[in-house]
Amino acid sequence: MKKNLVYAQSGGVTPVINATACGVIEKAREHGDKIGKIYAGKDGILGVLREELIDTSRENKTAITGLRHTPGGAFGSCRYKLKGIQENQREYERLVDVFRAHNIGYFLYNGGGDSSDTAHKVSQISQKMGFPVQCIGVPKTIDNDLPVTDNSPGFGSVAKYVAVSTIEASLDVESMASSSTKVFVLEVMGRHAGWIAAAAGLAAREEGDPPHIILLPEVRFKQREFLKKVKHAVENYGYCTIVVSEGVQDSRGKFLADAGTRDAFGHAQLGGVAPVVANLVRDKLGYKYHWAVSDYLQRAARHIASKTDVEQAYAVGAAAVELALAGKSGVMPVIKRVSNSPYRWKIGETTLGRVANVEKKIPKSYITTDGFGITAAARRYLAPLIQGEDYPPYGRDGLPKYVRMKKVLAKKKLDEFDV
Amino acid sequence: MKKNLVYAQSGGVTPVINATACGVIEKAREHGDKIGKIYAGKDGILGVLREELIDTSRENKTAITGLRHTPGGAFGSCRYKLKGIQENQREYERLVDVFRAHNIGYFLYNGGGDSSDTAHKVSQISQKMGFPVQCIGVPKTIDNDLPVTDNSPGFGSVAKYVAVSTIEASLDVESMASSSTKVFVLEVMGRHAGWIAAAAGLAAREEGDPPHIILLPEVRFKQREFLKKVKHAVENYGYCTIVVSEGVQDSRGKFLADAGTRDAFGHAQLGGVAPVVANLVRDKLGYKYHWAVSDYLQRAARHIASKTDVEQAYAVGAAAVELALAGKSGVMPVIKRVSNSPYRWKIGETTLGRVANVEKKIPKSYITTDGFGITAAARRYLAPLIQGEDYPPYGRDGLPKYVRMKKVLAKKKLDEFDV
Repeated sequence: MKKNLVYAQSGGVTPVINATACGVIEKAREHGDKIGKIYAGKDGILGVLREELIDTSRENKTAITGLRHTPGGAFGSCRYKLKGIQENQREYERLVDVFRAHNIGYFLYNGGGDSSDTAHKVSQISQKMGFPVQCIGVPKTIDNDLPVTDNSPGFGSVAKYVAVSTIEASLDVESMASSSTKVFVLEVMGRHAGWIAAAAGLAAREEGDPPHIILLPEVRFKQREFLKKVKHAVENYGYCTIVVSEGVQDSRGKFLADAGTRDAFGHAQLGGVAPVVANLVRDKLGYKYHWAVSDYLQRAARHIASKTDVEQAYAVGAAAVELALAGKSGVMPVIKRVSNSPYRWKIGETTLGRVANVEKKIPKSYITTDGFGITAAARRYLAPLIQGEDYPPYGRDGLPKYVRMKKVLAKKKLDEFDV
Repeated sequence: MKKNLVYAQSGGVTPVINATACGVIEKAREHGDKIGKIYAGKDGILGVLREELIDTSRENKTAITGLRHTPGGAFGSCRYKLKGIQENQREYERLVDVFRAHNIGYFLYNGGGDSSDTAHKVSQISQKMGFPVQCIGVPKTIDNDLPVTDNSPGFGSVAKYVAVSTIEASLDVESMASSSTKVFVLEVMGRHAGWIAAAAGLAAREEGDPPHIILLPEVRFKQREFLKKVKHAVENYGYCTIVVSEGVQDSRGKFLADAGTRDAFGHAQLGGVAPVVANLVRDKLGYKYHWAVSDYLQRAARHIASKTDVEQAYAVGAAAVELALAGKSGVMPVIKRVSNSPYRWKIGETTLGRVANVEKKIPKSYITTDGFGITAAARRYLAPLIQGEDYPPYGRDGLPKYVRMKKVLAKKKLDEFDV
């Protein structure tokens, strides 16, 4: 008997998470003999709990194809971590109730470490409750902090955006540094793992190239050494470009971003390590500065996506369906690197237990001894991930043709449920 | 007798100012019978004053062609405004001395209103000093605040970057708004004229589309109405995207960005109106927010340039050379709009006196009655300027192939000069 499928997006979105959705839906549509309806949770797992299941058969083929080049999370996402089964049996049971009511045989959960953990638990509890659902994790995170997989879909595009932006803004600064701004600070995402900031290092191809300093959450901030390095760059290259992870911590482990910036009313100002670093440079060295905080722009910049990343994002989606069709559960497709140069990769497989709740930080061998840059080994790892361009189509109005879903919900069969 | 040419870049650079340089040099190279050496001032007018003239004949053809797709100011720029002739006769005379020493017959000055003023004065004083130099202004400014010309090269690309980024970041916010960030604030440049923020309005094509609020320097900030509009957007569309010009002022004419943000040490924090607006939203409405400050990223984003803009930037450069060859002085090529739909334009001409020191702000008819959006008339004006894509070539490393100049200086003939 045919079973239906539920796909849900989880956590912060990426420029290519919809490419994964596209891979899932297109592959599942090929297998109409085994997979019936393809649903997507509205706003992620919250939609599954609330029995808000988007019926993707109501979306036409062009719209589904367009997901491949559309940023954001087309079906909606959320940050909602289910607690342990003991504390929260009610929600796990609700998921299984919804699955049972809609004859769901496959649950594909597209997210990071937390989502793997959830999918893993759902797999176990559905078995116990006598309605076994095949749960497949699908990797996604701009932070690149998932273990086992060589890299995470979403990261490559953010990496490309950050590397390109670093080159471009530095050309701007360099043009006028002799009489104007000498220090440029670019803040990028990365609360615990500094992969995104590290990727900015790809911009530097020759001695003196920007970024001159990378500040990673993996390395405690050393003010004296930092200022010395800023001065060195300005004196030798005319200017200094600094790329800083939002999660950089001072010597006591306190976030630099929380260094106590306050607004006129005395309210603590949240976010923004770039202005903190820029102010420090001005106070201690007197250089004129500019700073940028790219925030969501970096995470949504589908217009400058990495082709490699788009292909991998699509591939893990399609592979997740294949794993489901092969009868697997509690697993996740991963990206395995076959070679660096030329870059070759293939899809592998791991168990969700190995992925859940493990955070992959930048290894020591990827960080230069002084802590302010990346090594050749890091470049070998990072470089392939930003290769290739994959532009979205543009309209005659000069704007990208991003698609929107109709989001027609399947008819509810259960009582309301409070989340 | 052949005369030499000096080209100089002035003020803040743009994603396409080098396309103008490309137009100047390629057109001048076609006329080797009338134009001898083509020099570029190193770091703009400062290089001319210091007799630091880059000999562009030392740059190969591929490098010059590559200027068309390279952001920043390839020969260097500066913010240096020559004062009035009475106060500063010394510098004007120096310029003429340098021109005389290097047999300069043509001075092409690529900048905004201030530069037009300088070129205008140099034209007059060189005449008086018995060494008449043909001075041609070449329009450039991301702020689009030059009069006479229909638009300024540089603006269209920044406009496209901002409109695309607004769409992308809003898709991100919308994906998760039901349970997470509800308000996104994007800060863009524009100290006195809000054209860049206005261009974000092109992102909105249907009711409810972002940006929901645009804050312009032309409109005094009304806090109560603003908060009401934020609330309305969140309640009706699920989220609110706000695009704010750095130069927005409060009811007393004070920059909102100077609202007294202080760091931990009590130092006033410069720049950053986005966090001020975001904090206000949180304090008064309690919504979770994110903010981005694109700063130099917007001004250097050649990777998403407007094709229209690139073509116009090139065209004004080439046209400036043609004006010089036609014996003109004290003039500037401008862009004249022939029709809106289909968009057609041609190059016209104006006198520098008409351009100098006039700031073109957004007309009232382009701003909605409530002051928070743009009208259909504004859209008709803005829309053509972001049309078309003009991607730079990329290397196999996934990074754009931007060119660098060798910057070989001509031999000095004069004594040192203190600037």
